[in-house]
Formats: sequence, structure tokens, C-alpha cells
Amino acid sequence: MSNTKDTTEKLQIIPLGGLEQIGMNITAFCYGDSIIVVDCGLAFPEDDMLGIDLVIPDVTFLKENIDKVKAFVITHGHEDHIGSLPYILREVNVPVYATRLTMGLIEHKLEEHKMLDVVKRKVVGFGSTITLGELHVEFIRTNHSIVDAAALAIYTPVGIIVHTGDFKVDYTPVFGDPIDLQRFAEIGKKGVLALMSDSTNAERPGYTASEKTVGHTMDTIFAEHENTRIIIATFASNVDRVQQIINSACKYGRKVVVQGRSMVTTIDIAEHLGYIQVPENTLIDIEEIKNYPPNKTAIITTGSQGESMAALSRMASGQHKKITIDQGDTVIFSSNPIPGNEKAVTNVINELLMKGADVIFQDVHVSGHACQEDLKLIYTLVKPKYAIPVHGEYKHLIANGNLARELGIPKENVFILETGDVLELDKEEAAVNGSVQTGAIFVDGTGVGDVGNVVLRDRQRLGEAGVVVVAIGIDRENGMITSQPNIVSRGYVYMRDSDELIEDSVQLVTEVVEDALSRGTKDYNKFRNAIKDALGDYIWKKNKRRPMILPIIMEEET
Amino acid sequence: MSNTKDTTEKLQIIPLGGLEQIGMNITAFCYGDSIIVVDCGLAFPEDDMLGIDLVIPDVTFLKENIDKVKAFVITHGHEDHIGSLPYILREVNVPVYATRLTMGLIEHKLEEHKMLDVVKRKVVGFGSTITLGELHVEFIRTNHSIVDAAALAIYTPVGIIVHTGDFKVDYTPVFGDPIDLQRFAEIGKKGVLALMSDSTNAERPGYTASEKTVGHTMDTIFAEHENTRIIIATFASNVDRVQQIINSACKYGRKVVVQGRSMVTTIDIAEHLGYIQVPENTLIDIEEIKNYPPNKTAIITTGSQGESMAALSRMASGQHKKITIDQGDTVIFSSNPIPGNEKAVTNVINELLMKGADVIFQDVHVSGHACQEDLKLIYTLVKPKYAIPVHGEYKHLIANGNLARELGIPKENVFILETGDVLELDKEEAAVNGSVQTGAIFVDGTGVGDVGNVVLRDRQRLGEAGVVVVAIGIDRENGMITSQPNIVSRGYVYMRDSDELIEDSVQLVTEVVEDALSRGTKDYNKFRNAIKDALGDYIWKKNKRRPMILPIIMEEET
Repeated sequence: MSNTKDTTEKLQIIPLGGLEQIGMNITAFCYGDSIIVVDCGLAFPEDDMLGIDLVIPDVTFLKENIDKVKAFVITHGHEDHIGSLPYILREVNVPVYATRLTMGLIEHKLEEHKMLDVVKRKVVGFGSTITLGELHVEFIRTNHSIVDAAALAIYTPVGIIVHTGDFKVDYTPVFGDPIDLQRFAEIGKKGVLALMSDSTNAERPGYTASEKTVGHTMDTIFAEHENTRIIIATFASNVDRVQQIINSACKYGRKVVVQGRSMVTTIDIAEHLGYIQVPENTLIDIEEIKNYPPNKTAIITTGSQGESMAALSRMASGQHKKITIDQGDTVIFSSNPIPGNEKAVTNVINELLMKGADVIFQDVHVSGHACQEDLKLIYTLVKPKYAIPVHGEYKHLIANGNLARELGIPKENVFILETGDVLELDKEEAAVNGSVQTGAIFVDGTGVGDVGNVVLRDRQRLGEAGVVVVAIGIDRENGMITSQPNIVSRGYVYMRDSDELIEDSVQLVTEVVEDALSRGTKDYNKFRNAIKDALGDYIWKKNKRRPMILPIIMEEET
Repeated sequence: MSNTKDTTEKLQIIPLGGLEQIGMNITAFCYGDSIIVVDCGLAFPEDDMLGIDLVIPDVTFLKENIDKVKAFVITHGHEDHIGSLPYILREVNVPVYATRLTMGLIEHKLEEHKMLDVVKRKVVGFGSTITLGELHVEFIRTNHSIVDAAALAIYTPVGIIVHTGDFKVDYTPVFGDPIDLQRFAEIGKKGVLALMSDSTNAERPGYTASEKTVGHTMDTIFAEHENTRIIIATFASNVDRVQQIINSACKYGRKVVVQGRSMVTTIDIAEHLGYIQVPENTLIDIEEIKNYPPNKTAIITTGSQGESMAALSRMASGQHKKITIDQGDTVIFSSNPIPGNEKAVTNVINELLMKGADVIFQDVHVSGHACQEDLKLIYTLVKPKYAIPVHGEYKHLIANGNLARELGIPKENVFILETGDVLELDKEEAAVNGSVQTGAIFVDGTGVGDVGNVVLRDRQRLGEAGVVVVAIGIDRENGMITSQPNIVSRGYVYMRDSDELIEDSVQLVTEVVEDALSRGTKDYNKFRNAIKDALGDYIWKKNKRRPMILPIIMEEET
């Protein structure tokens, strides 16, 4: 198994993504001839990944061990846990196990990729255990910002591993039951080898508030704004949040319009599967909204993260075809900005305020992740020998590890892993032994993996400084220029205002090429490099910029 | 005066920048033949301003009224208040008035631009009043995150305007005296027409803590980390903060190394002018650090905002030539991330943690801007007839305006201005009448204003999807292709892996051009457009991307 020792008596835990970052969660559990993969998420591109739509994990390790891979076991339906499935299943086509709503969301995704017929799927109920080769996996109910989230108890010959998935402790969830703390305790009592727990909020003291508290806040806001239209932005996948907004709207006699493709999709799936209850005659079409006074309508929309193409952003910038923000509208952000989105969200808030809206953007949201005291509760119930913080940037993993140590887990039993690390465990000991190939593969349009670091670096250079193309026709045999330099630039300076610059450049390139021809140069690369150097120097002196220079040497066929 | 009524009896207040944004503060005050300009700041580029270094205001209004412009009056030495001076003074060369440290920083800037000899400058003391045509300006001491910050009382024939500049209320400042509240009260007692006050923290309840509280925190951290090296990142311009770090270092027997060009410059200027006291034998050169044990050294550095080229970022990524982060180093962020920098700061924190450093990034900073209760204090002392919130995004201005209304200023006397608005006031009334030309001018390298929206849009397109250049040689007279299509791309796909794509493209372009030639086409644009359309469609179908396509038609001179 790659460059690691072949010790079939040990369990290997190999994160293939999801550490040092929030996103792209995927972890392999290997024992003997059995490999199971927990989650298969994507990451959204960082700012410097220009033009990239999605980032998916490099699963070379799974492909190399394809005969052993038994299944994907999915904890919940967020993109950072299911988003890579359509891409990875093309190469690692094994059955997918998940709870009901999670599977509904996965199936929608597979359908979009026309893969529904080629992927085996199995819905698993909470409390059920599935057998996957030598490994057995039990699904345990948790709470999260999406319904039907599961923790996993992975029963292996060397011991039990508990993986929390993303979770919070909600004693009063909006839909379904609270997290199955009794089962965590029961398994803990049996003895747990390792706990892999959600680190997202490990820096935050205290407890995470119940989703229901948002319902009360929402009711209050609806009561206080009975004379205005209400527009609420939230996460499309937060079915419980949408349910509570619908509840408040019904209570205050408003019709509800849903805006944003992902929001419509999620509500459809959730309603179809019975995870959301929409009273009859509540939802109306956007076209019908004009039949009701503004204060009898509420609009639930995407765009809570300031995404430029989302419905709310288009409303704020006046580009939404159906909804115009009016003086006095109340706009609620039922969300917090995800790190990195702060400025985009603020820009949308400012635009809404300028259009005269009243914008409420604080304290209408609760997190879906466990805070420090919640994490301590789970550690205390599960009492693992080893702690393996997962799901977070490095600082979150460290914070989670520090909690484990506070609770008495010795320092050497806390493993802050890096993506690709092979953690080997048996009943006696645990250690990182070697690593496997991992990485980020870029999806751009329909292309997967054809944009790599070279292309990205070129995009950055082009984006920063533009491009200057120089085409010139030559006749190497007779040592003459046959077509004068043709110079075209984009993204460098506004060419129409730059006659002098073009004239100078034409002259410079002509001189350089004539010089090379006169010396009997035959190699195209020498012509190209001479042009690049001369023109690059000229431009740097001119205005201290470094556009990409692309020389093209043309020669008539003879 | 531009497209506004010519009513010399009224005072005009015209913000030429600084509203709807934090940055680029510059406001004109016009009465009769006298114009004074308060501040002359720059803005840092937004994420979508690719390749832009700085943004400066469009001062067409000042240029058109150059004969009336008497002076720039500067409130304090931050970039968003002084940064555009070297650019704007080239076209609007009038005297600059500022307090001593502020002038020191301005002079350093002018020296860098080789303009020290051509700009008249006058240092103004607190309590002094300067006469500028029909306007008189008094400098009033305030507190801020840079020493020597001033509020201005602008005495005009229609009444007194108080402009707070950026300020906080600090009863126990590190250097110098507290804000001159008595003078605010005295002027308020005389009767103030309008108060223009800092809106940055108008959303924050309560009071802003004294800078001195950071000194106590710093002492505590030094006491608790006596066995490790300490590295502290903060804002280069925060002289008081640097003073307190030096104080703590001395107290705990450490030598201090300063890293980062802007930090070194500021300390030099501040020390030279007596705004910072560095005990002898405290500062050491970076080369000497190896002569001391780590726990006897402290490093003050730039990079508190995660700026990629700053000293701390280079240390974190292992690219700093002199300083390597070691296991056990204590790194302190004495700063909060400025909105938009959150992710960059987090990335640096994660890198530092991965190198084994202990990172302290919370509660080692206080703001330099007044919170709600401080703002209320100033409103109450000054008792203006009109409130004109300044310095902030739209949401901050609105929040400041709401405070004014809470304090009894009628709604119609609160002016939320937009950049370019001409607010006209006399003793009786105030109203926005018309607007003047304003805007953002981009500085890229040494070029000022030659990159506009067309170039920026091209950069965005190039950055997102790259460029495909097609050069082809034709002979229109004889209707034939003389050089086969030469295709070069950058930032689109990795060309070496794309033989098929290139072959297909060459064939497609050949067909398109042959077709046009066979129809007797002469216009180069028609060839270009035909190539763009055909290749654009082909690429979109191929992988749903839209690189910029640049066709170049070459023809041999005849």
C-alpha cells in the first residue's frame, strides 16, 4: 500500500483532504483488504486560483488500491463532504452509503452528471450498521446545520473509531431528534480507540446555541416589521432555517417566494422527502408577488455570502429581473460570513442600505458546529485513547487537540495529522508511518485537471499585467523581415492612447530581429527570446510593469 | 464652480473621496474665492482591481478651480489621509499644513518622489489657527492610532464647521495629552454649524479602550513568555504601540530588532522628532541577534495584515533571509485584521502554528476610532446644527447618522453625503445642490491613470481564462494563405498536453480563413471576427471556457 509498511494487523487512517483547510473532506480507513472512504467533498477555490470553479482531491491512492475500496460512507449533505462524488466516482466507482436526505442531495448531483444509473447507492438509517469487508460502520444521529447528519462508529479488528462528522449538540432541534448522546456514551463505555472530531469551532468557548433560538429571533423580527416587505438570505442547504422562516411567515400571514436555484432545489428535495413542511398556499411564484401588498410577502433567497451571481446580490445591485429593492424593505442576513467572504457581504449590505433598505445582519444565525464545551462533552462520553482532530485549518486542529489534552489525553496520544499522513493504529500503539500522494485537482468548466500550476501562474501574470503579442514575418534564408511587427496588447495599457508606445515597440522589435537575421540566426527560440528581453526591458523602464510578452515568428512556407 | 449654483454667500462642502469607502479621504471646503482641501489620501485596490498598486482621487474639480485653492490641511499621517499628496501636488501644487509628526511622514513621502523642493509646507501646532483666504482653520488635539492627530475647526463666514479627523477619546494616551475636550466644548458653546465626524466604529457600542491597556497586556505576555523569543507584528504607523512594545522589552531585559521597511522608516522619523523614546542599547541590528539567547530578544515586525511581501509573512513561509520561526517562538498579532484581510491573516497564523510557534492573535489590540459612546460625547460637546458623518462605508455613515438623530438632531439636518455631492450651507439652511466630477484613478507601476476600466476588464478576463493567440499570414489579392495558423495560448490549458486541441484549432482557423478569402473578403476585421467566433465556439463546446481570443492577420508588404 504505497510507500508504507505492509502490516495488515494495523488499521490505517489516511486523510486524503480536509486537513489544513475547511473543505475537501475525504478520509480513507484501511484494514487488510478493506478500504472505506468517509466523505468525498470539494473545496472552493482560493483567491489566487483564478478561473477555477471547484477543487477536488487527488485520489491516486484509491485508484491504486481500487480492488480493496468497498464504499464511500457519507456523513452529511454539504458540498465539502459530497461535492467531489460525481468526479471521483468516475474513477473509483464503489457503492455510496448515506442517510436519507444526504442521499437525496447526492442523487440530485449524480442526476445532473447523468450518473444516476451507474452508481450503487444505499440509504442507511440511524442506528444501523453496515458491513464493508472487515470493517463495520454504524450511523449515529447528530445535529448540524443540515438535517440527517451522522457520526460514524467504525468497528475494526483493532478497536472502535468514532468519527463525529460535522456536528453540534442541539437539545431542541427543529426537525427530528437531538444528537444520540446515549449511543455515544454506550460506545464510549465499550472502549473507543480513537475519536476524530469536528474542529471548526474549537477556538470558541462555551456552547453552540440551538437552531430553535433563530426561530424565536425570526418571529421577533417579523413582529417588529409588520409594515414592510421582508427578504431573508440564508444558506440554501439549511433546511431547518428555511422551515423556521416559513413558520414565521405563516404566523404573520405572509406568502413566501423562494429565489435562487440552489435554494429552490434544496427545498424541493427536502419537501419531497418530508424534511420540511410547507403549509398549503404559502409558497407563491415570483410572478404572483405583485398581487400581494409588500408587507404580506417574504422572500427567501440565496446570496448570504455576497456571492456575486446569487439572487440577493443581483437585487442589491439592481440587476435582478423580478425583484427591486425599495425604500423601507427589511433585509435579513440569517448567516455569518464564511472567512474570506467578509468584504463581499459588506459590499452587498452597503448596496442594500443605499437603496433605502433596513438591513439586519447580526445575531440572526447560529453555528452548526460544536463549541469547546460541546466538544468536551463528546470527548467525555466517548473517552477515546487517541484524539485525532479533523475538519479545520491548522489553528482549529491545534485548538481541538489542546481541548483533548485538557481533558487528560496525553500529548503523545493527540495526533495533528496532515493530509496524506498514514496513521497506523493497533490496540497497543499509534504512529504516523509514511504518507501517500494527495493534492488538489482543479475543475475549470468541464475540464478536470487540465489546469495546473503552470496555467495558474500564467493567469496570475496575465491578470496582474496583461499580455503584449508581437507577430513578425521573417525569411530566414534571405535574412529579411517579410511582414513588419504587428503588436497587440490586452490588459496592459489602453492601446488606443498609446501610439508612441506602439511605434517605439515596432521599431525596437524590428531592430532586434534585423540584428538576429544579420547574424544568420536560424533558431526561432532565439528570435523569441531576443524580442522578449528587449521589449520586456523597454516596458519595465517605461512604466515599471511586466506584462507577458508573446512573440510569434511567422514564415512563409517555401 | 462647476455645475452648481454660483452663490458666494454659501459655504460648499464637497467630498472628493472617502465616502462609501474607507480610504481616499479628501474634502473641499469652498467659500467665495477660497478653497481649502482637508486631507489627500489614497485607497488600496479592491480585489477586482488586478495589478493596481494604489487608487487616488480624481481632482478635476480642484484643477478647474486651481486659482482658488489655498492649501491642503492634513489631519494625520495615515496613508488614507496623506498617500495621494505626491500625485495630486504635481497638478495642484499648493501649500500643505499639518502637525509635526504628520509633516515628518509627508516629507518622507515627498522626498521619495523627489518633490521636497517644490512643495511649500508649514507645521502647525495644536491650538494654532491658520488663515487661508476667507477661511480660518484651527488645529485641535485628538487621539488616534497615530500620534499628532488633529481635528479641525473651520471658521467660515456662515459658521463654524468641526471636522474630527480620525479620532478616539483616550484619557491616558501613551504620548502627549488627551484629546482637547475642553476646546471642543468651548467651540461648541460658541455655536457650531456642522460636525463632520469619524464613522469607522459607529456600529460599535460602548467606548474605545485606551492605548495604554495594550501596554498592560503586552507586559503580561512578556512576563508569561520569559523563556521564548517574542515576535510582535503591528501597524508600522502606530508609534505608541511600538513605544509600548519597546517598554515591555526593556522591562524584561530584551534587545529589540525592527523588521520591515515601513516600520524602520516610521520609527526613524518618530525618534528623530522625539515622538518615541528608545533607551540606549535597546535596538540591535538583525545581524547581532545571534549574539543573544532567543528569550533575550524581541522582534517588532510589519505584516500584521498578512500582506504577502511583509516581513512576518516571509518568516511564516520560511522565505525570510534572516529570521527562521522555531518551535516555541511566541508570535503576537498586536492588531485586528482590516476587513478584507481576514483570510490572509489566518493563513499566516496557520503557517506559524505549523512551524511550532505559539500564536497570540486576540485581545492585544485596541481600535484608534471612537465607538458609539465616544461619538455621543463629541456630539454633545459640539452641539452642531447639522451632522455630516464622514470616513466610512455607507453602513458606517448610516450608523453615525442614527446616533446623531438619537441625540436630537432632526433627520433633515443629518446629511449622508455621496462622494462628489455639493453640500451648500449658510446660517439658515443646508442642502445638496448638484455634484462635481469625482472618481478613482489607478496607479500601476509608475503609470497614473493609463489603466482604466477597459484594461481592468481585459485583465479580469485574461486572469479568469487566459488568452489564445492565432496568427496567420494571408495574401488577399491572390486569395491564399501564405503562413499556416500559428496558435499560442497562455493561461488557458497546458498547451504541451493539448496536441489535439491545437490541431483542431489550426484546421478550423484554416477553413474559416479560406472561406473568407474565397468570398473575396478584404477587411481585416472580418477575418478577425470570423476566427474569434469559430474558435470561441469550438473552445466553449470543448470545455466551457472563454479565453480571450486574439487573431493577428499578417500580410507580406508588396
